[in-house]
Amino acid sequence: MNFEMAAEMADMEGIKVEKVIVNDDVAVENSTYTIGRRGVAGTIFVHKIAGGAAEEGKDLEEVKKIAQRVIDNTRTMGMSLGACTVPAVGKPSFELKEDEIEMGLGIHGEPGTHREKISSADQLTTYMLNKILEDMTVNKGEEVAVLVNGLGGTPLMEIYIVNRKLHELLEEKEIKVVKTLLGNYMTSLEMPGFSISVIKLDEELKRLLKASADTPGYKEI
Amino acid sequence: MNFEMAAEMADMEGIKVEKVIVNDDVAVENSTYTIGRRGVAGTIFVHKIAGGAAEEGKDLEEVKKIAQRVIDNTRTMGMSLGACTVPAVGKPSFELKEDEIEMGLGIHGEPGTHREKISSADQLTTYMLNKILEDMTVNKGEEVAVLVNGLGGTPLMEIYIVNRKLHELLEEKEIKVVKTLLGNYMTSLEMPGFSISVIKLDEELKRLLKASADTPGYKEI
Repeated sequence: MNFEMAAEMADMEGIKVEKVIVNDDVAVENSTYTIGRRGVAGTIFVHKIAGGAAEEGKDLEEVKKIAQRVIDNTRTMGMSLGACTVPAVGKPSFELKEDEIEMGLGIHGEPGTHREKISSADQLTTYMLNKILEDMTVNKGEEVAVLVNGLGGTPLMEIYIVNRKLHELLEEKEIKVVKTLLGNYMTSLEMPGFSISVIKLDEELKRLLKASADTPGYKEI
Repeated sequence: MNFEMAAEMADMEGIKVEKVIVNDDVAVENSTYTIGRRGVAGTIFVHKIAGGAAEEGKDLEEVKKIAQRVIDNTRTMGMSLGACTVPAVGKPSFELKEDEIEMGLGIHGEPGTHREKISSADQLTTYMLNKILEDMTVNKGEEVAVLVNGLGGTPLMEIYIVNRKLHELLEEKEIKVVKTLLGNYMTSLEMPGFSISVIKLDEELKRLLKASADTPGYKEI
């Protein structure tokens, strides 16, 4: 609703607006919070690649097409070890027991699909990657980029542990990782947890993903 | 002790080693944990500038001198809203009440100088910058770089709030900020809190700080 309003307001000021809807989350098909799938950390790939296309001087229609191709080829699965506290609310958006984790949560602190007992980073990574690859076709020898995204309260060290297993699994499947992003790119304030995103790349998407960028949140040299 | 041992081991393998001791923390002069002042987030400036000097081909002795000049001109003050949990220990390294903050803590979760009631980001920033500037001389018109460093569990949004006030205060004092670093550069795992570092720059330190770099933790374009 908010994005719709923003687009209308920009349009009223004479700015040409196009809209794409990111829907990379493989966890939740429909929830009380959403209609259709949610956009989660895969949005980072959309911004980066669409930004790269715009920077190359492509027009709005072409940029939109490329953004849609990113969306069509991106999947994400997330989990958390605890909730974040939205400042205006002043208390955690959900409560987990010491040994519980929340699978498939949203980036605004929406609850996920289910809770389970905590397991190792390797087990979680395997489960989450399987969920992703059940939902997209990536053949042997094809190229992908991956993002292990911290939700705000996850030490980089733990993100590296997940990344190690992720690369091991993809190597076993003979899927080629040509770009890896690690860090707190799209956070839920101080939430402890992470998501894994996979994007299947063609030559153009790869070039645009790797194009140089200098923003506060994303630097590419 | 660990660094001393590492230096000795490298030396035994025929690697020429020099040592500098970072001591930027203005909070603690001596504690049960340390002899002399501690090195905290100001270390980031030391690594970056000494790295820049080495990259330019300067020899070890020159790099050491420059690193020492960074140390002599860098001060840091930190605070936290809670402790981190060192994995091997399995419980938070200290406990704070809901409305308490810890002032002047170390980067390994060592307790700080004292606890106080929580106050606004603006008040904390003012207090912390004053502590820093009581301990170093920066005259009107002189150039500095600042680092607002998250301790791991601090949303970037909150770091920006601190940074806004910090720039306002420095502007009032007519101190010129020529470079600003914002983010989780030197963390204590998932600790919520931040530190402010100020380094007084001469032309050479400024050039080396701004020199391009491409590492996982620090990118400069």
